[in-house]
Amino acid sequence: MMANAESMLPRSMMAEPDQLRILDQRQLPSETVYLSCRETPDVINAIKTLAVRGAPAIGLAAAYGLLLGRSENLAADALLEEFEAAASSLIAARPTAVNLAWAVEAMMQVVRRLHREGFPDDWPTRLRAEADRLYQEDRSSCLEIGRLGASLIPRGGRVLTHCNAGSLAVSEFGTALAPIYVAHDAGNPLHVFVDETRPLLQGARLTAFELMAHGVPCTLITDNMAAHVMASNRIDLVIVGADRVAANGDAANKIGTLGVAVLAKHFHIPFYVACPFSTVDLSTARGEDIEIEERHPNEVTSLYGTPTAPKNVQVFNPAFDVTPASLIDGIITERGLITGHLAEGLKRQAEPFA
Amino acid sequence: MMANAESMLPRSMMAEPDQLRILDQRQLPSETVYLSCRETPDVINAIKTLAVRGAPAIGLAAAYGLLLGRSENLAADALLEEFEAAASSLIAARPTAVNLAWAVEAMMQVVRRLHREGFPDDWPTRLRAEADRLYQEDRSSCLEIGRLGASLIPRGGRVLTHCNAGSLAVSEFGTALAPIYVAHDAGNPLHVFVDETRPLLQGARLTAFELMAHGVPCTLITDNMAAHVMASNRIDLVIVGADRVAANGDAANKIGTLGVAVLAKHFHIPFYVACPFSTVDLSTARGEDIEIEERHPNEVTSLYGTPTAPKNVQVFNPAFDVTPASLIDGIITERGLITGHLAEGLKRQAEPFA
Repeated sequence: MMANAESMLPRSMMAEPDQLRILDQRQLPSETVYLSCRETPDVINAIKTLAVRGAPAIGLAAAYGLLLGRSENLAADALLEEFEAAASSLIAARPTAVNLAWAVEAMMQVVRRLHREGFPDDWPTRLRAEADRLYQEDRSSCLEIGRLGASLIPRGGRVLTHCNAGSLAVSEFGTALAPIYVAHDAGNPLHVFVDETRPLLQGARLTAFELMAHGVPCTLITDNMAAHVMASNRIDLVIVGADRVAANGDAANKIGTLGVAVLAKHFHIPFYVACPFSTVDLSTARGEDIEIEERHPNEVTSLYGTPTAPKNVQVFNPAFDVTPASLIDGIITERGLITGHLAEGLKRQAEPFA
Repeated sequence: MMANAESMLPRSMMAEPDQLRILDQRQLPSETVYLSCRETPDVINAIKTLAVRGAPAIGLAAAYGLLLGRSENLAADALLEEFEAAASSLIAARPTAVNLAWAVEAMMQVVRRLHREGFPDDWPTRLRAEADRLYQEDRSSCLEIGRLGASLIPRGGRVLTHCNAGSLAVSEFGTALAPIYVAHDAGNPLHVFVDETRPLLQGARLTAFELMAHGVPCTLITDNMAAHVMASNRIDLVIVGADRVAANGDAANKIGTLGVAVLAKHFHIPFYVACPFSTVDLSTARGEDIEIEERHPNEVTSLYGTPTAPKNVQVFNPAFDVTPASLIDGIITERGLITGHLAEGLKRQAEPFA
């Protein structure tokens, strides 16, 4: 299937020698436009404005972004300083997803090693190799998540998903959508219900778009229809992504995920979170410790420039919410499926790699 | 307060001798435009296209609409036939709200009485008086609902509402919003969280608009933020309207209401339904017997003509859902507040009037 997915779907980003080309997801599904990022601030801007979104994709964009526009002729200490400043700015671009800080930190570990070596001539190649490694690691993780998660989808199963945790949110293939792609390609006649995901409609614009491109049967609904769809026995399981999973199993994800989880519990529908292990942040004890980004009111009060609400209306616009572990039936990472006591399962998955 | 509400808010409709002027709610909040309806089909069109919406308002528009364009010179039997045909078309305009059929039936009872009298010369006046009576009855009901419901809102209470059950949905004042207006005008420093209510944004366009016009502090959220807002202790109670309440207390209301009710139960927040008793349909035993209208996919896939989803995406677009009585803490009608066993309370409220 993955050859198929690869051939049909635009990539969230493409790294080239002197630039990172980032797919401008704000213009999907009508236009497929790549932004040319040649310096770190270009990538920061792409992250802040949501041209690139999805926790793993943001992390990878930042990893490549750290490389862009570095002055190769600086003295070692000055170059390190430049890297540190660029890393801080990248990490500050969005607060909730942990993959951003995680990927930048992985890159900075190599930077610091190179600094200790006095930045030998091949440092750009070696640093770029680390970004490529992160990309390939994410790609492999997604494939494995797909393989593990596909077994959770019964034949002809009806899956509800929220926001976009598909190929556009990662390197390739997706997290929440990877099991769907794998099951579909293995001949499972499944069907996906897609929450449109207000305010920015990532479900309608991105998830429906990539599912259709891959030939997966799907039905678009507004977020507030999920309850009725569940109540009328149209859903067998829910799979969503995550932007950060705390040590206790609480998961931050796109606003609205908590509501879906509460509904799933009420209607006795299994609720799964799919994410690479890089999304797990064991240094964050509980969901309430996760900073929730609030975004500009105009995301809620206008759409494509057209006002959708009265002028000067007060708006609350949190970009994420936190689903408590008690509402999550399982977490799928590339290291395995965790059910039961999530905190213990996460700890166990961390151990062999610690 | 009501003088205040009256002075600030445009009326959902204005009956004049030869026409019904219907506020085109599709153009709110940017434009205040009244449609001139001079014949029954004009009103049917206004109902079908949602220029007028809200269960009580639809009923009243239909009551006046039945009168429009009737040929005064017909023989009695022919005139009755014309009325019967007009009544059927009006009732068929939208299936879910019961007030439409209820109001048309109230009018037809007078029509049949007039027919038995051979349609005396003053029949237009007498029939019009019945429509006016229905209008005034709805107005009084809303005032009483406001008075009864206001006592449920604690001082400084934070109320969540969904869709628009305000002055625009009824004759005047509102159902779910009436308690808010009464409490606010009595000096309760309450705050209202308004679900934008996809797909047609009645919350953003109508509820926020009329609350702001009345000076009630409010915050607009997307529907999928309700869970986070409740989880973060920002809501004390929920009040919504209804399009039909079944004999067992199940309530059909705008799509998304069921989700709000499940969330309210999960987060231990009281959930109230406010409606005139004309919305109660004792001939419908249970919620599952209520026909749920499905509307055109383009309500979900475009906004003000701009596409918001991929071309040809499959869409499910139910306009209503049913909240089971088990999730409803109370029903407020002009006849009183029903808590506990809702079916018994509804039956009791029907009795003295049967």
